[in-house]
Amino acid sequence: MKQIEGGVCAAKGFVANGVHCGIRKNKEKKDLALIFSQTPAKGAAVYTTNLVKGAPLRVTKAHLADGMARAVICNSGNANTCNANGIEIANQMCELTAAQLGIQPEEVLVASTGVIGQKLDIAPIAAGIPPLAAGLDCHSESAAQAIMTTDTAVKQAAVEFTVGGVTCRLGGIAKGSGMIHPNMATMLVFLTTDCAISAEMLQKALRGDVAETFNMLSIDGDTSTNDMVVVLANGQAGNAEIAAEGEDFAAFMKALNTVTICLCRQIAADGEGATRLLECKVAGAPTLADAKLAAKSVVCSSLFKAAIFGADANWGRVLCALGYSGANIDVDKIEVAFRSPAGTITVCENGAGVDFSEEEAKKILLEKEIEVLVDLHQGTAASAAWGCDLTYDYVRINGDYRT
Amino acid sequence: MKQIEGGVCAAKGFVANGVHCGIRKNKEKKDLALIFSQTPAKGAAVYTTNLVKGAPLRVTKAHLADGMARAVICNSGNANTCNANGIEIANQMCELTAAQLGIQPEEVLVASTGVIGQKLDIAPIAAGIPPLAAGLDCHSESAAQAIMTTDTAVKQAAVEFTVGGVTCRLGGIAKGSGMIHPNMATMLVFLTTDCAISAEMLQKALRGDVAETFNMLSIDGDTSTNDMVVVLANGQAGNAEIAAEGEDFAAFMKALNTVTICLCRQIAADGEGATRLLECKVAGAPTLADAKLAAKSVVCSSLFKAAIFGADANWGRVLCALGYSGANIDVDKIEVAFRSPAGTITVCENGAGVDFSEEEAKKILLEKEIEVLVDLHQGTAASAAWGCDLTYDYVRINGDYRT
Repeated sequence: MKQIEGGVCAAKGFVANGVHCGIRKNKEKKDLALIFSQTPAKGAAVYTTNLVKGAPLRVTKAHLADGMARAVICNSGNANTCNANGIEIANQMCELTAAQLGIQPEEVLVASTGVIGQKLDIAPIAAGIPPLAAGLDCHSESAAQAIMTTDTAVKQAAVEFTVGGVTCRLGGIAKGSGMIHPNMATMLVFLTTDCAISAEMLQKALRGDVAETFNMLSIDGDTSTNDMVVVLANGQAGNAEIAAEGEDFAAFMKALNTVTICLCRQIAADGEGATRLLECKVAGAPTLADAKLAAKSVVCSSLFKAAIFGADANWGRVLCALGYSGANIDVDKIEVAFRSPAGTITVCENGAGVDFSEEEAKKILLEKEIEVLVDLHQGTAASAAWGCDLTYDYVRINGDYRT
Repeated sequence: MKQIEGGVCAAKGFVANGVHCGIRKNKEKKDLALIFSQTPAKGAAVYTTNLVKGAPLRVTKAHLADGMARAVICNSGNANTCNANGIEIANQMCELTAAQLGIQPEEVLVASTGVIGQKLDIAPIAAGIPPLAAGLDCHSESAAQAIMTTDTAVKQAAVEFTVGGVTCRLGGIAKGSGMIHPNMATMLVFLTTDCAISAEMLQKALRGDVAETFNMLSIDGDTSTNDMVVVLANGQAGNAEIAAEGEDFAAFMKALNTVTICLCRQIAADGEGATRLLECKVAGAPTLADAKLAAKSVVCSSLFKAAIFGADANWGRVLCALGYSGANIDVDKIEVAFRSPAGTITVCENGAGVDFSEEEAKKILLEKEIEVLVDLHQGTAASAAWGCDLTYDYVRINGDYRT
């Protein structure tokens, strides 16, 4: 397997585009994206667990009922959530897109991200779809730009891998955090692959992957109403369709996992206001569930995240977060170290502090990517979670008036 | 029942004091507090659920095994947690206090708050206890000052109430958030009453009360390793001892609840960096558990807390927090209003936005105490939760170096 360029257009037969249609006032910002498979494709998705769900999610779910989809239309600037006419607008977006692409509305998935509780006007979208569709090509970056809100960086990833001797590709785009009128930290991920795989196995792969990747990511602990991860598989690679578990499915899972972890890290690093990517790796846990609870608790701790902003080796806050994580932990066995490109420093052994150089620790924590290495010394299960530091800019971005 | 002065010394036979002994470098800051019942007293306590527990909690728990206690010794500036010799130091604090007061070490409860993982030196405490004990009087405020860390205000409350025709008093002190060398948001509450009540009923009262008061309070979502609420009851009021549920117990519970809610509000208002007290009142819930989940989720949302800092009527974030709260909620019935001394404004009905004046909303949200009124329109259960806004100063306080 190797990392390649191309993002959501890396897989054969997938094209994309992004334009500014006028939902956002700033004309420099694209606000409408389209992803299209030139041939029929299997589709799978996972959605937010928030009981308040954006209208686009409900329409997408209905359209994916048969496990097939060919296009994704997505706007930024308005989440189309908690609006009386949200379903109607989301359906119109699918109908307009389908008409332009010559496919059925049921083959189109729809997503929206932005401020919630404000009515979404169909007019700019209706005007934007024709040029958007006309310009479809390998424009992964344009599509990635068009789904950004407070994101400061485009997020793309792709890999090439082999299934049954056949070269396949899998890639995607993602958006990370907040809004121009900051509101909901909505996460959207669109993945495409030319690997032939049944709809059932595609859904199974995605569900399994997300539990270890996007569900282990936190910017601020607020589960959005519009989170959605979609994967489309058009089979253009020509491999024998993956229809059951086995070697081929494992190869597909590995490719999927590589791309999603890459996107997770990009999202975490570009969290609202973030100056540092935070990765907590927990080893030695009695069970996987314990490892995941422990890792996620550390990257979610406001106190620890603020300490990382201050490059403060405040390991007591790591212990505190492990202690309330709900994981089965023997406190007296915990070992904690901090690692970055500047080095590694052990700060806690057997649940108590060890002497360490504050100066060296500070040097390590001033890097852009910080790993918190936790060994529970209670078993062999391991997990990782991703987050970022808590900064003045997070407060500024989210404390601003919407108007 | 009426609110009275006196805090932790309001009840008959209780004295207190606070001094600077030298744990903290700043000589202006008191760092050692003592509370003493001049006659034997029943004691009850509840502790943090964090698996990482401060050494003082373990010693206090052991000393309360018989339901009796007469004194509380508490230092600030160091949490005496995750230290190899923590238990030894906590025991020494009890022994030194007992010797000075002429009681048994097992009658002394001990608490510490401050940075964790740094050894606590017994020397300044040993030197401080004699003058601390010698100065015991109605110094509730001095004791309250001595347990403060990043708190900016002293927290005290007391009431006078009647049990079986006999006038009783119940009061207490609390500390709220963080450290001089900011570390752990430790909450400590010490309550005293002259009401006669059995140890069993005292524990029952405290456990029941805390579920509705301190457990509904959040500054930053980080459960401390040293949280502790202690109540001492010396029976000096002369009422017939409360030994079972009934009218007297209900009167006691009401007094306890009044004092603890008052302290909760003081802690929330003085949360690290806070500029506003946030109270979420949920009504119309199908069950009490749903009401509590919903209310607490709203005051815990980083996004909503940042919006309140910006006086932004961003009700979508309230809906979002309700949606992921875990409560059984029919989204299409949710009603949300914001209330403060400047007025009340409804922002959401039937799960969707209603037209409202942003100007009026801003005026309401610029006040110091903000109520978020949520009606789920699904039943009759209600609950409240307390928190504060998320501000630049929270980040500054917790991002500072420990050193």
